[in-house]
Amino acid sequence: MLSGFAGSGKGTIMKELLARYPEEYALSVSTTTRQPRPGEAEGREYFFKTTKEFEQMIAEDALLEYARYVDNYYGTPRAYVEEQLQSSRNVILEIEIQGALLIKEKFPDTLLLFVTPPSAAVLRDRLVGRGTETPEVVHSRLSRAIEEADGCEAYDYLVINDDLDTCVEDVHRIICSERNRMRHRLSEIEKIKHDLKQLVKGEQL
Amino acid sequence: MLSGFAGSGKGTIMKELLARYPEEYALSVSTTTRQPRPGEAEGREYFFKTTKEFEQMIAEDALLEYARYVDNYYGTPRAYVEEQLQSSRNVILEIEIQGALLIKEKFPDTLLLFVTPPSAAVLRDRLVGRGTETPEVVHSRLSRAIEEADGCEAYDYLVINDDLDTCVEDVHRIICSERNRMRHRLSEIEKIKHDLKQLVKGEQL
Repeated sequence: MLSGFAGSGKGTIMKELLARYPEEYALSVSTTTRQPRPGEAEGREYFFKTTKEFEQMIAEDALLEYARYVDNYYGTPRAYVEEQLQSSRNVILEIEIQGALLIKEKFPDTLLLFVTPPSAAVLRDRLVGRGTETPEVVHSRLSRAIEEADGCEAYDYLVINDDLDTCVEDVHRIICSERNRMRHRLSEIEKIKHDLKQLVKGEQL
Repeated sequence: MLSGFAGSGKGTIMKELLARYPEEYALSVSTTTRQPRPGEAEGREYFFKTTKEFEQMIAEDALLEYARYVDNYYGTPRAYVEEQLQSSRNVILEIEIQGALLIKEKFPDTLLLFVTPPSAAVLRDRLVGRGTETPEVVHSRLSRAIEEADGCEAYDYLVINDDLDTCVEDVHRIICSERNRMRHRLSEIEKIKHDLKQLVKGEQL
């Protein structure tokens, strides 16, 4: 799960991972009750649902996590994530921190990465540089960034997005390394130990 | 800290890491009371000490860990490791599991990697392939490998040494990723949050 300050470039990082390693990654697509915006496609940006459908999904435990913002629901469909994991792909979710921590609680093996620009000044420049925002907008974005980063200390990894290329490779490296975690490999080591014991027995006969 | 089955190739992996990334790694050199063997040099294979000198080091807490095998002491000098860490190098120790777990207890940030051949059969072939060993020697080496692997489940990472080149890069990738661990980067994230708050205050004035 990838989270980060607004303007940290986490969306771009995810797109780059998929473009560079299409066989290794799948993007988790969220579901929402908000209206599709122009250019958004069903199953690409979101799975669009009615409130009734969404609440049905909640009742059926079909969501890994969900939250309500203003008047709309947003959530992560369980079935889609499980399908992709079965194909042995790394499923990436772009998600805010509170949702990520909820998923981590249910699935402790989930990997949490937090992306940040190298400094607050760079973050400010990125938020301003996006367009012709008024000082009020910049101010409110900065304030929201602070709020949104609440709890990021509980994340597993911090990645600095200074140079995009380096940052994408850092994220990829961290995810690859996770596959070598001993707790995911206990059955392999048990098998080797068991086979070694059989070999020793054989030598004794 | 790198441990692994006898015949797992952990010595070769360490040499390769140093050869490929000389600026990033330093080898920890152990100290021992056993006699130097032909070709061994002071400070390269070991720091050679008398029993009296070694026991003095124990008394002065100058060893990160030590153990006695047969009639000799073996240990890890603290000063050398600390010196290398100060130069921001990754210090690699080739060490048996019990010693590694002792160090991990004192220094929880220590990273433990366990190297294994891809299967018990390959391990057997490597142990036999080393020379013209008798079946008894092969048997005793296999038995010792089993004993030596006791406790490896407590390690952080498992690395399979099937292809040496892949394995060396796996180890390097895992060690690099560790630098992105949130617990090593808390001061950075605190600084960005603090500076963001200052920026927001500034915008309000």
